[in-house]
Amino acid sequence: MFKETRLRSIIKTISWRILATLTTFLIVLIFTKKLYLALAVGGVEVVAKTVIYFFHERIWNKIHFGKVQLKPFVLWFTGLPSSGKSTLADFVAERLKKIGLKVERLDGDKVRQIFPQTGFSREERNAHIRRIGYLCSILEKNGICPLASFVSPYREARDFVRNITSNFIEVYVATPLEVCERRDIKGLYKKARSGEINQFTGVNDPYEAPLNPNITINTEKTSVEESARIVLNYLRNNKYLK
Amino acid sequence: MFKETRLRSIIKTISWRILATLTTFLIVLIFTKKLYLALAVGGVEVVAKTVIYFFHERIWNKIHFGKVQLKPFVLWFTGLPSSGKSTLADFVAERLKKIGLKVERLDGDKVRQIFPQTGFSREERNAHIRRIGYLCSILEKNGICPLASFVSPYREARDFVRNITSNFIEVYVATPLEVCERRDIKGLYKKARSGEINQFTGVNDPYEAPLNPNITINTEKTSVEESARIVLNYLRNNKYLK
Repeated sequence: MFKETRLRSIIKTISWRILATLTTFLIVLIFTKKLYLALAVGGVEVVAKTVIYFFHERIWNKIHFGKVQLKPFVLWFTGLPSSGKSTLADFVAERLKKIGLKVERLDGDKVRQIFPQTGFSREERNAHIRRIGYLCSILEKNGICPLASFVSPYREARDFVRNITSNFIEVYVATPLEVCERRDIKGLYKKARSGEINQFTGVNDPYEAPLNPNITINTEKTSVEESARIVLNYLRNNKYLK
Repeated sequence: MFKETRLRSIIKTISWRILATLTTFLIVLIFTKKLYLALAVGGVEVVAKTVIYFFHERIWNKIHFGKVQLKPFVLWFTGLPSSGKSTLADFVAERLKKIGLKVERLDGDKVRQIFPQTGFSREERNAHIRRIGYLCSILEKNGICPLASFVSPYREARDFVRNITSNFIEVYVATPLEVCERRDIKGLYKKARSGEINQFTGVNDPYEAPLNPNITINTEKTSVEESARIVLNYLRNNKYLK
């Protein structure tokens, strides 16, 4: 929550006064061609208007008219492991921060690091996603836009998040399995194929693709810059951004 | 996130201009006793300064100096069931909102309604509190002050929350067991005594009282208004409020 300090109002008052009194001085000088008169009017003006301006500022700080709050939203990135969710979400988050939005990145891997007990059964995955959804709903309610990148393989859990949030935007990172497996950034596909890991989405656990995603991106065909542009355009077209 | 609209700047410009040009007009009139000169200077001033003022406003809207953000904090209310945590937290939350703080109330009962599967074993309770703590840490990071009221009976879980947040303020609602049991708002003490409920804190599950709470309140002896005043004084004395 921002508040304007008295010091800000004081310095703003001074910067305006210098600008304004110079203007008055010049106007009177041009009209009357009398230097002393122009200086005298300017001198009195400095004192009178500095006081008036300061109080004008303080009063306006109490008036809320014209302070707009942008409509917050939840950007939910779902897709197979190594599909490019986190990279894209990070990229979009930076862009949104630059525009001045308050965003919060929530990443599957990072949250699981904090909560190592979170399991991978259908029930545990769904409970996990529901909790993240609850977090998203509270952030959204407070004007902070979460960018959540989670495999979130089951429709029911994503639907839960959609239902408890106001502006849920599902970004389906639809990179084909073979491309994800070729990337295999964390070497997990290999481990899953060899049987070292169970319940690995795409190999020995199902991924239920979104039926009506708001945005679909195949990172095999679109660069991260281009993908981010698609997301930002969606936000702009739907009045989430100006 | 607030942004000042162009319209706000325009109306503010007009309100200032009326005030300021009247002043200039009067100054010139008093100095020269010439009505037409005063009107002419005022007329030119209106045009020149309206333009300058508007741009002065727009430039200052891009300057962050003097916009202070208050230091956010986490108010954690712990205590036996029916000790008065939620009532006190609600009351303090209203006071803080009135001052203009962004707050979020998190209540044990309400969160459990959303997540009915959350259990009552030591492990499940601790995992639950850790997740709420994570939520608090993200809210705090974003300038929103959580007021969390949870029995949170185990020290280890409260310590986890203390560690992942920056300004953790532990409010120990230390109402004695017999007083809580006499109140028994939800009739749960009765059920616990009759054996209908297991793992009920205070009856058949331990409560580990805080060793160094920041604030201790016994709602048997202090009214909710007085208790809230104690909390607000603590916040003021520790520079969380101005």
